[in-house]
Amino acid sequence: MTIKILGINGSPRKYGNTYKMLKLALYSAEYLGAKIEIIDLYEKRIEPCLGCLTDNQYACRYPCVIKDDMQEIYKIILESDGLIFATPVYWFNMSGPMKNLVDRITVFENMVYFDEYSWVEGKTAGIIAAGAESGTAMVVSSLMITLNSYGMMIPPWGFAYFTGKEDVLTDTNAVLDAINVGRVVYMAIKGEKTSRWYDPRPSFLEEVLSRVKEECEKNYKELFPGRKEKIFTLLDSEKE
Amino acid sequence: MTIKILGINGSPRKYGNTYKMLKLALYSAEYLGAKIEIIDLYEKRIEPCLGCLTDNQYACRYPCVIKDDMQEIYKIILESDGLIFATPVYWFNMSGPMKNLVDRITVFENMVYFDEYSWVEGKTAGIIAAGAESGTAMVVSSLMITLNSYGMMIPPWGFAYFTGKEDVLTDTNAVLDAINVGRVVYMAIKGEKTSRWYDPRPSFLEEVLSRVKEECEKNYKELFPGRKEKIFTLLDSEKE
Amino acid sequence: MTIKILGINGSPRKYGNTYKMLKLALYSAEYLGAKIEIIDLYEKRIEPCLGCLTDNQYACRYPCVIKDDMQEIYKIILESDGLIFATPVYWFNMSGPMKNLVDRITVFENMVYFDEYSWVEGKTAGIIAAGAESGTAMVVSSLMITLNSYGMMIPPWGFAYFTGKEDVLTDTNAVLDAINVGRVVYMAIKGEKTSRWYDPRPSFLEEVLSRVKEECEKNYKELFPGRKEKIFTLLDSEKE
Amino acid sequence: MTIKILGINGSPRKYGNTYKMLKLALYSAEYLGAKIEIIDLYEKRIEPCLGCLTDNQYACRYPCVIKDDMQEIYKIILESDGLIFATPVYWFNMSGPMKNLVDRITVFENMVYFDEYSWVEGKTAGIIAAGAESGTAMVVSSLMITLNSYGMMIPPWGFAYFTGKEDVLTDTNAVLDAINVGRVVYMAIKGEKTSRWYDPRPSFLEEVLSRVKEECEKNYKELFPGRKEKIFTLLDSEKE
Repeated sequence: MTIKILGINGSPRKYGNTYKMLKLALYSAEYLGAKIEIIDLYEKRIEPCLGCLTDNQYACRYPCVIKDDMQEIYKIILESDGLIFATPVYWFNMSGPMKNLVDRITVFENMVYFDEYSWVEGKTAGIIAAGAESGTAMVVSSLMITLNSYGMMIPPWGFAYFTGKEDVLTDTNAVLDAINVGRVVYMAIKGEKTSRWYDPRPSFLEEVLSRVKEECEKNYKELFPGRKEKIFTLLDSEKE
Repeated sequence: MTIKILGINGSPRKYGNTYKMLKLALYSAEYLGAKIEIIDLYEKRIEPCLGCLTDNQYACRYPCVIKDDMQEIYKIILESDGLIFATPVYWFNMSGPMKNLVDRITVFENMVYFDEYSWVEGKTAGIIAAGAESGTAMVVSSLMITLNSYGMMIPPWGFAYFTGKEDVLTDTNAVLDAINVGRVVYMAIKGEKTSRWYDPRPSFLEEVLSRVKEECEKNYKELFPGRKEKIFTLLDSEKE
Repeated sequence: MTIKILGINGSPRKYGNTYKMLKLALYSAEYLGAKIEIIDLYEKRIEPCLGCLTDNQYACRYPCVIKDDMQEIYKIILESDGLIFATPVYWFNMSGPMKNLVDRITVFENMVYFDEYSWVEGKTAGIIAAGAESGTAMVVSSLMITLNSYGMMIPPWGFAYFTGKEDVLTDTNAVLDAINVGRVVYMAIKGEKTSRWYDPRPSFLEEVLSRVKEECEKNYKELFPGRKEKIFTLLDSEKE
Repeated sequence: MTIKILGINGSPRKYGNTYKMLKLALYSAEYLGAKIEIIDLYEKRIEPCLGCLTDNQYACRYPCVIKDDMQEIYKIILESDGLIFATPVYWFNMSGPMKNLVDRITVFENMVYFDEYSWVEGKTAGIIAAGAESGTAMVVSSLMITLNSYGMMIPPWGFAYFTGKEDVLTDTNAVLDAINVGRVVYMAIKGEKTSRWYDPRPSFLEEVLSRVKEECEKNYKELFPGRKEKIFTLLDSEKE
């Protein structure tokens, strides 16, 4: 039976450190045998949670009353054995689209009131966070308690983070950590009996690394010009 | 000179505990002499932050490249001496609209790269969080480090929280804490020299309390029917 | 092969809510087949971590340079398949003795620099936190990211918390959550293939509950008089 | 009237980054006119909090039932107008001695039950955290909500952190942030009316920097040999 692992990208930059680390994890899982898929939250319309269950505990259930792109994402989540949540660090916390996703997943967890189990329980979760400044651990711990509260399992070293402005691909430890996230999520789903959960020299390191490098360079070339036009409207040319 | 205090409501329920605590704080500040205003984030369109500054530190500045309701909110924030951020607790964290607001305020803080000061520095901030389950302290501490990083001052006991499903107005401590948030924000702005920052029996307690009670009952009557129709679409009638 | 689960009690009150929840978890695991053991940190001498690895990454390794009761605790930890960390909430955080324990476990994790694996990796961890006020989720998330960083696995719903001053044994949800922590830690170690990780009506509920009740009443009778004498030295008799 | 600012050092290394940042802050405050003092927690005996107030809210009050070095520290805290808490990051959290200190300060806060005010309310607090890896923001936010809950005020940019293994004195931003903590704590106590809370080029930068550099080099020479002997007992000579 194929193991399906879903990567959820909460970054608007499909060439940045968050995206790179997520892809390192996903490609490693793929290398090991998983079927992978990625969702880019910034390309979806995800409305904020309406907090229905505060009015009535039974008002919140799958499928959510809000009919937006979550309806499609819900289906992909249900089919996945493992999920890797990747987010940039904005003010010591996840990005807004990731926050909306996290809150909207409540419909699965709240099924405990109808079916006595959470529809996402037993799935395995990994977490990735990258930021220019401090806050990565705050994001990871906030996501970890949340995913575990959904009923998800967190495998040993189930997260990777990177703090800094430089290219994460130049930081060996961060690269290995990200790769390992894909690996442990895969291993935990497979139910491998092992006491070795960190691989300091995966055989597929170079392959995965160059694949991510290439893809992100391509993405940058394709996507940055349009993005630049948008974000630099106000920028004095001399400061670019 | 009139002291202006802005309440930012991150809850979709204008009759719930978050809203009630925010109004307790605001009316107390008003009673003491402040001019108050409230913004309901769920009634605004606030797009998520695009993380421009990760591409270029100078790309992020006031006014943001995104033209949505933040443009109007930015102006109100700039004119305010104090701000009280109030949010429900969704998964140990603030609501999505509050997260988007927090991230979009970056344009003010990032003005340090242009003007050598943050456009919101020196403002005084209060925080309110209410949730059915644990997580209030996580939300408060996450907001507190963020607001302080903007350059805002946090007065003694600058926050109030409530954990529980019951009506917060029946909990004397939570009511007093919320009232006190409005009070300390006002006092700090006024620059009062005092070593007494908590008032356990404010003279205006009853007045403020009944004003909030009345308003929220009215809001409930007006707003809940429409909301109910929306959120209970899927609900079996017998479980309502 | 017997599954060994160690409970680590970070509370000074062996009749309080933290202790009760920990015992609910442990007795449930025992009921399912585990061999259980408990360590009461307040009865041990555990010096604070000296941060040796900041001077030299290789200076920190098992056994720690500090010769105190951790030497005995280290051995018990190594022999355990699962560990349940239970702490009261002191200022939104774990107790001091729990903090010292957490830091001193670094010697196991830092063995990655000598053996390429953490000596506690692959063990399964559960978390319990009880406090009179908010902060339980902060403690849980702080412990969760730490234990996961040691290389430990967090099973679905691997934690339980309780916020309040009343007896936790009167709160059905908190009791079930605590019992379930013992259960999921045991199940994860056993490697059970299941998608049901929460048991809302464990057959052994009454048995475990009355066992904990009885034990804590006995502890209270035996231990509180001595404790009372110590802590109430300064207390005006009329306020007792 | 002289403004008194107390630095509380939670690091065992009186030549490390935490200590350096604390000294930058303190000397800056001194330069501006404050009388400064420093307490090194690792040189004191501070027992863990016994959680008396969980048994009886009135059992916790100044002076604590535990007679250790806190008795002397309590007096210094009471006499201080401002306090700067500095800690290394151990597992995303403060050090054990800092945790014990934080918990033992409860005796001042709990005086609200006797005197209707916290004995430390209205004091101004600054926070410093330094760590080799992520977690600085978690420590800062945990301390910030705690100090604010004591009744302390947090001035704009009331904290500084540094993540990394290199010497913090080589990082201009971290140095400026640390210096600024001393400055804003001093300014807030003095009640200065200003909207400029960050000084990017303090006139006393070089003076303070070289003073800290010199002192820490001296400390290293004096203290490291003894420390080395202690921590490297187990270290293979070739790995030193």
